[in-house]
Amino acid sequence: MVEFVTLGRYIFERLKELGVLTIFGLPGDFNMTLLDKVYEVDGMRWAGNTNELNAAYAADGYSRVKGLACLVTTFGVGELSALNGIAGAFAEHVGLLHIVGIPSISSQAKQLLLHHTLGNGDFTVFHRMSSNISQTTVFLSDIQNAPAQIDRCIRDAFIYQRPVYIGLPLNLVDMNVPKLLLNTPVDLTLVKNDPDAQEDAVEDILQLISQARNPLILVDACASRHHCKQEVADLANKTQFPVLTTPMGKSCLNESHDRFAGVYIGSLSNYKVKELVDSADLVLSIGALLSDFNTGSFSYSYKTKNVVEFHSDCIKIKQGIYPGIQMNETLRIVIDRVHEVTRDYIPARLPDATLFERPQLNSSTLTQEFLWSRIGSWFQNSDIIVSETGTAAFGIISTKFPDNAIGISQVLWGSVGFATCATLGASMAADELQSKRRVILFVGDGSLQLTVQEISTMIKWNLTPYIFVLNNEGYTIDRLIHGFNATYNDIQPWNILALLPIFNARNYETYKISSSEELDSLLSNQSFSLDSKIRMIEIMLPRLDAPSNLIQQIEYQSKMISDV
Amino acid sequence: MVEFVTLGRYIFERLKELGVLTIFGLPGDFNMTLLDKVYEVDGMRWAGNTNELNAAYAADGYSRVKGLACLVTTFGVGELSALNGIAGAFAEHVGLLHIVGIPSISSQAKQLLLHHTLGNGDFTVFHRMSSNISQTTVFLSDIQNAPAQIDRCIRDAFIYQRPVYIGLPLNLVDMNVPKLLLNTPVDLTLVKNDPDAQEDAVEDILQLISQARNPLILVDACASRHHCKQEVADLANKTQFPVLTTPMGKSCLNESHDRFAGVYIGSLSNYKVKELVDSADLVLSIGALLSDFNTGSFSYSYKTKNVVEFHSDCIKIKQGIYPGIQMNETLRIVIDRVHEVTRDYIPARLPDATLFERPQLNSSTLTQEFLWSRIGSWFQNSDIIVSETGTAAFGIISTKFPDNAIGISQVLWGSVGFATCATLGASMAADELQSKRRVILFVGDGSLQLTVQEISTMIKWNLTPYIFVLNNEGYTIDRLIHGFNATYNDIQPWNILALLPIFNARNYETYKISSSEELDSLLSNQSFSLDSKIRMIEIMLPRLDAPSNLIQQIEYQSKMISDV
Repeated sequence: MVEFVTLGRYIFERLKELGVLTIFGLPGDFNMTLLDKVYEVDGMRWAGNTNELNAAYAADGYSRVKGLACLVTTFGVGELSALNGIAGAFAEHVGLLHIVGIPSISSQAKQLLLHHTLGNGDFTVFHRMSSNISQTTVFLSDIQNAPAQIDRCIRDAFIYQRPVYIGLPLNLVDMNVPKLLLNTPVDLTLVKNDPDAQEDAVEDILQLISQARNPLILVDACASRHHCKQEVADLANKTQFPVLTTPMGKSCLNESHDRFAGVYIGSLSNYKVKELVDSADLVLSIGALLSDFNTGSFSYSYKTKNVVEFHSDCIKIKQGIYPGIQMNETLRIVIDRVHEVTRDYIPARLPDATLFERPQLNSSTLTQEFLWSRIGSWFQNSDIIVSETGTAAFGIISTKFPDNAIGISQVLWGSVGFATCATLGASMAADELQSKRRVILFVGDGSLQLTVQEISTMIKWNLTPYIFVLNNEGYTIDRLIHGFNATYNDIQPWNILALLPIFNARNYETYKISSSEELDSLLSNQSFSLDSKIRMIEIMLPRLDAPSNLIQQIEYQSKMISDV
Repeated sequence: MVEFVTLGRYIFERLKELGVLTIFGLPGDFNMTLLDKVYEVDGMRWAGNTNELNAAYAADGYSRVKGLACLVTTFGVGELSALNGIAGAFAEHVGLLHIVGIPSISSQAKQLLLHHTLGNGDFTVFHRMSSNISQTTVFLSDIQNAPAQIDRCIRDAFIYQRPVYIGLPLNLVDMNVPKLLLNTPVDLTLVKNDPDAQEDAVEDILQLISQARNPLILVDACASRHHCKQEVADLANKTQFPVLTTPMGKSCLNESHDRFAGVYIGSLSNYKVKELVDSADLVLSIGALLSDFNTGSFSYSYKTKNVVEFHSDCIKIKQGIYPGIQMNETLRIVIDRVHEVTRDYIPARLPDATLFERPQLNSSTLTQEFLWSRIGSWFQNSDIIVSETGTAAFGIISTKFPDNAIGISQVLWGSVGFATCATLGASMAADELQSKRRVILFVGDGSLQLTVQEISTMIKWNLTPYIFVLNNEGYTIDRLIHGFNATYNDIQPWNILALLPIFNARNYETYKISSSEELDSLLSNQSFSLDSKIRMIEIMLPRLDAPSNLIQQIEYQSKMISDV
């Protein structure tokens, strides 16, 4: 006898197979029958966010910890609210399955002027909008091929680490599909590289390495997204080349690794890091995502050098390109064979430990400089560290990360409001991991306002993140970019520390920190370091205080973008 | 000597010309030079919202009061966050100018991987996405034709009452254009109808009227959006035909008008209203927008009758259509000539005043039925009444509106979270009107959570709306549609009445209302009725309590959309 499961349940069984145990989103009249299926799958839960953009951000944060996430929205109103979050996942290579509950096939065929439509009978317009920011989209219509389509979508979201869109008509959710389809797991193996092309590429790479006297490895975001952290560590161990990360690549290699040499941001780098790159004659770039804020406004000094770029979909060697050759397999071969060409290599001396220096206590005003230097020693191994676009994203770059940390920051897309929600997603993911991880958020008082209600969802789930709110009375990064005194960079002041009780938190702590001594004392307190309750820490900072690398960045940037 | 103004200032001078004095949005690095120009224009202000979706909703609410609104966002992150709000304005015919600050022309030409891009050098993708939900879009690139393009965009937004998208490169904002262009106002006159076609249409209409014994007028949303309220009143006065409004058309005719006959929602109507329509032999439909929630799930009983539909872009007479003939001019002619054919008309008897009945006090549990019946007599002339999608949008239909009221409800698009922000927009508009209007919001405890932070902006501007929060412990409308007991329709409970002080309100009042007697007593209190401070009133309602028309609607709807 053939056993069946509903298509709705099929989707969640597949997601569970990949360790996705939380589904983000909001209910709506075209998705509720699907939501009924969430709790049919053992161990799975419905996050229940406070709005769809927040849900998309949260799913992004979850995926950065677990490799994949799922967001469910409703037709029109729900899905469009989520688009900015989806675009961020597209830009930054984050695997995200976006399932949209849409009207039944027959309603579509009749072109009914349903609510949540534009009133013109066009049911595909939202799908078309999403296709601009999705790796793959499907608009399901046939139960026969629906399971295969869903499998392909899940595979694409995971393999390409990009958003994938599924339009799921209301009437398909309760239809049955054979249960035995679930016996064959979704195929997540990468397509094997063409062996001949790959052999050529590897030969070229090994030859460049053999000729180099001062090679180095530069690691960026996609090394982590496309699951190459182990390859990065192995390559570093085998070659002993210095390893630098970009701001977005931070946490791709343990910063205590003896070949870790710092964070490279072009001209904005620590001068010792910059010297190292300036003297290099070969750069092995892994998973590059070279945007302005990630490169010190494109001020890389290695442009004219020999460069090998390992990407998820090609290998570039100097000006040549090997399309379709993905880095994971090629890196593995290079790691296996690199000893042939590194016998004569004399490991370069690295910049010393002063890269992440702890400042002297200063009893007067608390500054960002102090915060970012001091906070590093408070971090613990395996912490998940989330920093909001703005002063926090720049400040965190100069902070030493503990081993096995996960850094989350939307450096390329840079959507303000992301980090608070990503903290929710990361906390839900951490909650599902076998070994406990603390989740720590750095957010500005301005950016907090955009998505503040998602703290309510953290409380609903008894999550225990640390929420450091940098209170500098508004949008300080914008003030530095333009309009020091413009009122449009001011915000309505809130009683920030009263937020947790508003959302009905029971087990919480709040702190107001106004001096470097207070901060030092708090961070030295053992019980504060214990991940036991949700905490909000308001840090009072001067209005125009900012990390020095941000100030430099803005100087470069203003030259670049004001080019009339 | 030729005088100049910057292009940025030119835009705001044009908007001021049309009475648009508040600009909604958030600052971002690609729009701040534009924002500098807001305060160069006397009397103009920058709202400074808490996120872009909220800003779009607020602009929509402002436009529904003043006829046009302007929203400024930044490239990528900002504009995509606003899309759901823009789509709502498109669906519901609301005039909205969406100006997006984009990177300079030269950055675009170089395909720089700037932050806020997808990282692929494609600078037009967001513009393409918006074009799906915009009447007109332009991506400015040339200062010479920029003023003309801007004028055309403003005209289109106003004439078509739809969103219009302007991509404004950073480098154009400070360029000069001749000041004398401002001496010629933007042309907002409608294109004249073709006289021959119009004459044919009018003849047909008058003939149908002359043959009708029981004609009636049915008024919908676009009558208000396309500035035909006066024509509706004049037609009613001249003909003495009964006038019904749809839910979305509510407030298009004063409900104290002696020919106002009630709200028509197909089978969900009051039975006396339904009888009136059933016995009609001609329906003059003005500004129809016939979506499911607006028609009782398409259950109109007049489908087979003689129907004349007056639209902003055509006239339909029975099955025939006169394309390009707009209703304003044609209605004017019909009004002038209709006496020729109505001499023998005997005015129909209208349903009596029990349409909006005031219930007896019931000292036990407070219900929606009581609320919606009681609140009508508390309303005052010229009130702006905003009701959120959900139980409020249905409840308000059965409430009698005072004269010159403006009703705001997103019945077709139905995006939850809209109403709170529309209340901000409407309040800012009311603040700019010569005669004072109260602004009154009805929102659910669930829907409040999506956009709650916009209350902070109300406080920043010392606005004084009444915020009635219907607390029924979650998404009651969704519970009724599907999943009575499903946890996904529950929400994290908040301490709602503590919200105003969190956002630093100084001049405010809060009330918790748990019985019909308490509500009655509050609404009878003179000082409460005085529009002097921001007030939040939490109304405690049973979990599954809902207006009866909503319960019926859901029964019809479930038949319609579950058609596998």
